[in-house]
Amino acid sequence: MSYTATLRILDLVATFVFALSGAAVGVKRRLDLFGVLVLAFVAASSGGILRDVMIGVTPPSALSDWRYLAVACLAGLIVFAWNPIVSRLRKAILLFDAAGLALFAVLGAQKALAADLEPFAAILLGALTGIGGGIVRDLLVTEIPTVLRAEIYAIAALASATVVVVGDLLGLPLTPMAIAGATLCFLLRMTALWRRLPIADSR
Amino acid sequence: MSYTATLRILDLVATFVFALSGAAVGVKRRLDLFGVLVLAFVAASSGGILRDVMIGVTPPSALSDWRYLAVACLAGLIVFAWNPIVSRLRKAILLFDAAGLALFAVLGAQKALAADLEPFAAILLGALTGIGGGIVRDLLVTEIPTVLRAEIYAIAALASATVVVVGDLLGLPLTPMAIAGATLCFLLRMTALWRRLPIADSR
Amino acid sequence: MSYTATLRILDLVATFVFALSGAAVGVKRRLDLFGVLVLAFVAASSGGILRDVMIGVTPPSALSDWRYLAVACLAGLIVFAWNPIVSRLRKAILLFDAAGLALFAVLGAQKALAADLEPFAAILLGALTGIGGGIVRDLLVTEIPTVLRAEIYAIAALASATVVVVGDLLGLPLTPMAIAGATLCFLLRMTALWRRLPIADSR
Repeated sequence: MSYTATLRILDLVATFVFALSGAAVGVKRRLDLFGVLVLAFVAASSGGILRDVMIGVTPPSALSDWRYLAVACLAGLIVFAWNPIVSRLRKAILLFDAAGLALFAVLGAQKALAADLEPFAAILLGALTGIGGGIVRDLLVTEIPTVLRAEIYAIAALASATVVVVGDLLGLPLTPMAIAGATLCFLLRMTALWRRLPIADSR
Repeated sequence: MSYTATLRILDLVATFVFALSGAAVGVKRRLDLFGVLVLAFVAASSGGILRDVMIGVTPPSALSDWRYLAVACLAGLIVFAWNPIVSRLRKAILLFDAAGLALFAVLGAQKALAADLEPFAAILLGALTGIGGGIVRDLLVTEIPTVLRAEIYAIAALASATVVVVGDLLGLPLTPMAIAGATLCFLLRMTALWRRLPIADSR
Repeated sequence: MSYTATLRILDLVATFVFALSGAAVGVKRRLDLFGVLVLAFVAASSGGILRDVMIGVTPPSALSDWRYLAVACLAGLIVFAWNPIVSRLRKAILLFDAAGLALFAVLGAQKALAADLEPFAAILLGALTGIGGGIVRDLLVTEIPTVLRAEIYAIAALASATVVVVGDLLGLPLTPMAIAGATLCFLLRMTALWRRLPIADSR
């Protein structure tokens, strides 16, 4: 499978998990089905749209490829039908959000490198891509975004984008570095959530 | 009159009605005159700016053509001077919002087709152009956007953009299809509002 | 020193003062250190990113030049360590916000002129660049943006951008006009704040 195809598939996976988090927020806020679908799609596509606009890719992939909308609506329907209890929703939102953050940060960094951005710009753009979806999702339901409230959120996104960019500088193979970067980000977030230790403050 | 000139005039009309809705929200939230004018302009121009940025048109028309600002300020002054009672404001906001949604969805789809976007992308971009102005307007006064709360909102925008794009694929004349699309969107929203039936849920 | 270098330095100064205002809002809302740093950077870079995206400069300077992040984090650390009392914070936010508004409005207008935009577009883009950082900062903590609530805010930004653009049209030297424009904007805001007169209404 070509590198571009791999990126596209990972992009759809990231879209799916961020859509799950958006839909879960929508259900928690008692939106109707269409509200849930819209929030799922907007949350899922905002990170990628932000990234594409900032590297000059127009129209953004999330608008020109029907699979992004299909995947986001599928995620929205699953969460809406699942009808979970609220305490489970909260955990689900955090889990999906962490996975989406990890995937989009890695993908943002890779797309930025592919667009010939400098290493520093690729790291920052990766991190912004990762946090973008969650920011838009939270703003749309008028909540202060997770990135401002959670420990190890922006740092986790920066760490995973850095792994990808440093790996690229060293000429290491792309896919393993992407997996390593995403895993690092996800584990950092999960550790922060599960241990509930204010790791950020103790440094 | 050329097709481009027609598009520009419709764009100004859409700007005007979304500016009316923005100004009405501003008056409802007791902003002063300048706050009302800013909200009118930002609400009115956000949909078009979003569209232009996403299809790579820089600077966006709303910033490069003084008539957009003039039209938005005129709408803001009218609403500010009109000084309506609050119950009328609520109805006015919904009415202007529906008209702006319909016009911007149709225009967004047409501008996207003119920029050689694929049919699917043109539909989605049209719908996003339509909902963009209302989202920014509501976010600026920290309310959950109408698109997440109202029935038949995103669907109405998608429907009108679809009419325009399908008409284009079939080689039908542009202006009648634009009118049909905008009318369909507006009627869908008005029906949902007047009958207050949760049509979205009963499907 | 070249004109481009002067612009870059002023851009970093504007980034610094808007980062101070973002960090002060973050401390006021009791965010932890990383939340404060993220809010400082996002608030500080949003105006410039908005400007660059709208004139087609990708990637935006704030993402491609590491000094913007460094300067924003420095500002965030200073405010976080300073640990001021809340009444001082409020005044500090207003002061830094006025300085950032003035600098970004002038810089936005100059960058727009350098990108060959028409005079009207340069004025409007300058004003939007100026108000952008404060809007994003306030939205992220779910407050109604200052630009909608304060007297003489958008008008001050428009006035300073107009000074720069008219000076350019008349062939006057750039640096003095930039200083005059920024000073005008800053004094207009400070006068409105200190006298607490609703100047906007009395006109």
